[in-house]
Amino acid sequence: MNPVELIIKKRDGIELSREEMSLFVKAYIDGKIPDYQMSALLMAIFFQGMETDEIVSLTDVYINSGAKVTFPQEMNTVDKHSTGGVGDKITLMLAPLVASLGVKVPMISGRGLGHTGGTLDKLESIPNFRTDFNSSEFKKMVNESNLCIIQQSKELVPADKIIYAMRDVSGTVESYPLITASIMSKKIAEGAQNLAVDLKVGSGAFMKNLDNARELAKYLKLTGEAFGQKVAITFTNMNSPLGHAIGNAIEIKETIEYLKGANLPDIDAITKALAVNMVLMSKGASTKEEALAMIEDSLSSGKALDYFRKFIEMQGGDSRIIDDYDLLPHTRKITEIKSKRSGFVQAIDSKSIGYALVGIGAGRKKLEDQLNYATGAELFKKVGDEVQAGEVIGYLHCDDDSLIDLTIKRIIESYLISTDKIEKEEIILDQWEI
Amino acid sequence: MNPVELIIKKRDGIELSREEMSLFVKAYIDGKIPDYQMSALLMAIFFQGMETDEIVSLTDVYINSGAKVTFPQEMNTVDKHSTGGVGDKITLMLAPLVASLGVKVPMISGRGLGHTGGTLDKLESIPNFRTDFNSSEFKKMVNESNLCIIQQSKELVPADKIIYAMRDVSGTVESYPLITASIMSKKIAEGAQNLAVDLKVGSGAFMKNLDNARELAKYLKLTGEAFGQKVAITFTNMNSPLGHAIGNAIEIKETIEYLKGANLPDIDAITKALAVNMVLMSKGASTKEEALAMIEDSLSSGKALDYFRKFIEMQGGDSRIIDDYDLLPHTRKITEIKSKRSGFVQAIDSKSIGYALVGIGAGRKKLEDQLNYATGAELFKKVGDEVQAGEVIGYLHCDDDSLIDLTIKRIIESYLISTDKIEKEEIILDQWEI
Repeated sequence: MNPVELIIKKRDGIELSREEMSLFVKAYIDGKIPDYQMSALLMAIFFQGMETDEIVSLTDVYINSGAKVTFPQEMNTVDKHSTGGVGDKITLMLAPLVASLGVKVPMISGRGLGHTGGTLDKLESIPNFRTDFNSSEFKKMVNESNLCIIQQSKELVPADKIIYAMRDVSGTVESYPLITASIMSKKIAEGAQNLAVDLKVGSGAFMKNLDNARELAKYLKLTGEAFGQKVAITFTNMNSPLGHAIGNAIEIKETIEYLKGANLPDIDAITKALAVNMVLMSKGASTKEEALAMIEDSLSSGKALDYFRKFIEMQGGDSRIIDDYDLLPHTRKITEIKSKRSGFVQAIDSKSIGYALVGIGAGRKKLEDQLNYATGAELFKKVGDEVQAGEVIGYLHCDDDSLIDLTIKRIIESYLISTDKIEKEEIILDQWEI
Repeated sequence: MNPVELIIKKRDGIELSREEMSLFVKAYIDGKIPDYQMSALLMAIFFQGMETDEIVSLTDVYINSGAKVTFPQEMNTVDKHSTGGVGDKITLMLAPLVASLGVKVPMISGRGLGHTGGTLDKLESIPNFRTDFNSSEFKKMVNESNLCIIQQSKELVPADKIIYAMRDVSGTVESYPLITASIMSKKIAEGAQNLAVDLKVGSGAFMKNLDNARELAKYLKLTGEAFGQKVAITFTNMNSPLGHAIGNAIEIKETIEYLKGANLPDIDAITKALAVNMVLMSKGASTKEEALAMIEDSLSSGKALDYFRKFIEMQGGDSRIIDDYDLLPHTRKITEIKSKRSGFVQAIDSKSIGYALVGIGAGRKKLEDQLNYATGAELFKKVGDEVQAGEVIGYLHCDDDSLIDLTIKRIIESYLISTDKIEKEEIILDQWEI
């Protein structure tokens, strides 16, 4: 194999065979192909895309680069994946909720980067919470207790980690086929036999419109199926941040509030839509209605909250936070965020809010940045909501006086407010069932 | 400057400012940006192209990475560049010819790679011929004797050399803007105030059709003009190899034969078309007719041949080869190449002929390959020519018995022959005067 010839082939729009794709990526992982040829190939893929066969082949190389967890077929394991949004804490309530109903959830999760947060970071704001279990501990916990959420280790799909790092520094992150291989390799290697995807669409998401989202969805579904994994996809609105809290510890608090019965319509809609899919895929119910009834019962009876407590304990965390929020990291100062205008919220630049909060430590610019688990914002207004000048539209959690005014200014500027009345938006935009 | 942001900007089709382009390339040359980011940017440029401003900026960085030769404006220096073809020896007769008429020709030339040969290699087949003069020797020779042909040194445009090497291994050679910056930086740094371009079009050239050729021509012209260099472009046919000889020493022999009066219609047409432009640009004549008369006189009077002798001597070569071809490297064996079919030549795959001859050492696969100056082929038939089965259509110059049959087979297979009569093709396809 001549690497340049394969780069040129891809560059000129010719499909690489499974063998060619495997050889190139394996040789790269083994250090036999230099970084500059991998980055050139990645950029060529960015422009030319990949056929399903190529994606499957790349996914396969990723999976086979490390260990693979498997569960007996009759367990009907189900994982959930979100393409990432601002204030997206759905996993935090969803995973314990479905686990409380007997769904087996093996989950590898990620850290936040850029304007969106990461599930692992949020969980790690719980004192002593661990996500560094090895794959046999992971398997044992899923078997015995239904749920385990771990970080990507060196054991599982190391090739993805290596190539993701190269994509990050070569401007080739935003490629649907590469995103697909990266997501699906982890979801297959962790042993998920079924996958519920929350595909975020809107100004705060990577996918700005439904057409693009459906294209990525198609890749995810076809790739999953090629490995015998069933994939259900829920397309959800990301024009407003999810829930109220955006941060780490404050999102844990909001999760607990939801499990205690707080009224959070957007979170409720998405959690239930995904939970229904997960329960059905796990064969825990045979109809949607049955699944939904089980879910609502778990929430209202406190079963889901109890499971959340158990889950924290299983992963080494301090579950007393559920009853005493003061045990979570928190700022001394909470500052009111007041609207400067009256009118209706036409649009929210969630991405800009995300980046404003990165500035106070709630997220990361670079992977090596340290987080401040306590910081963040609570924001109450969604697109379509009415707002009065001077009204408190949220709270900033930040102790650094030098950053408070600037951050509030950036948050306020992220709201487009005018006197035109505007329809409230749908939360669930589309559903692809299995 | 964040390199990834600039890569993404280019990737997404946004023009880089002169400053951004300069910063990126300079930082790369200085080793502050890694290879994998340069290769990713090059691939993004391959797909997105470059605006004239960006090309000028890149060319400028190339030029300023090294020394620059300048000549007084009144010298009206003129160089010639060919985009490369099979059997393309035009420089060998053209440069001495116009130098014999007082045109000052400072020329940096290249080596062959792939299916096309290089002027330097052909010249170096002359015993003792040197091309490694430094820039002050170069300048002195052009000043005193009108012509000097040197290799690209570390002194002049080192950035181009570094980035060309990266393009070569990252599949990004075939980009018009990158080709433009590479060509023009050398042609400006060497001190050419005017440039005559031989833009080859056809099956044996990089440009397969006139539309593509005109696109590259536009880039070359605009870039030259941005540096105050006048650029004339001659679009010439590369559907048949040029002249008869393809190799190194045998092309030197053919050059001498042409200067002695041999009838080589394609070579004659291209040499004269370019020579007219060069004489006019040098202000050696004021009309085309006047320039052509001077050129024809130099050829018929032996003045051009005398200058060729002087030129070889100036560059340290053994000029006795002009009278005694046996002093040139030559093979012991010359084998007849016979046509297997009767009919008319419909097409010639010159590229395939070029690669066949690379196989016997007449060209290089990789830059570090050693050449055999003696080997090559003489081929007499052009597109449109009639041929009889069994007719000798050429000769192979090769001593290696194990390669002769195979090479002849590959050459014969490069001719498409059928009974359909076909028009002879034009040699000069278009002209852009200054």
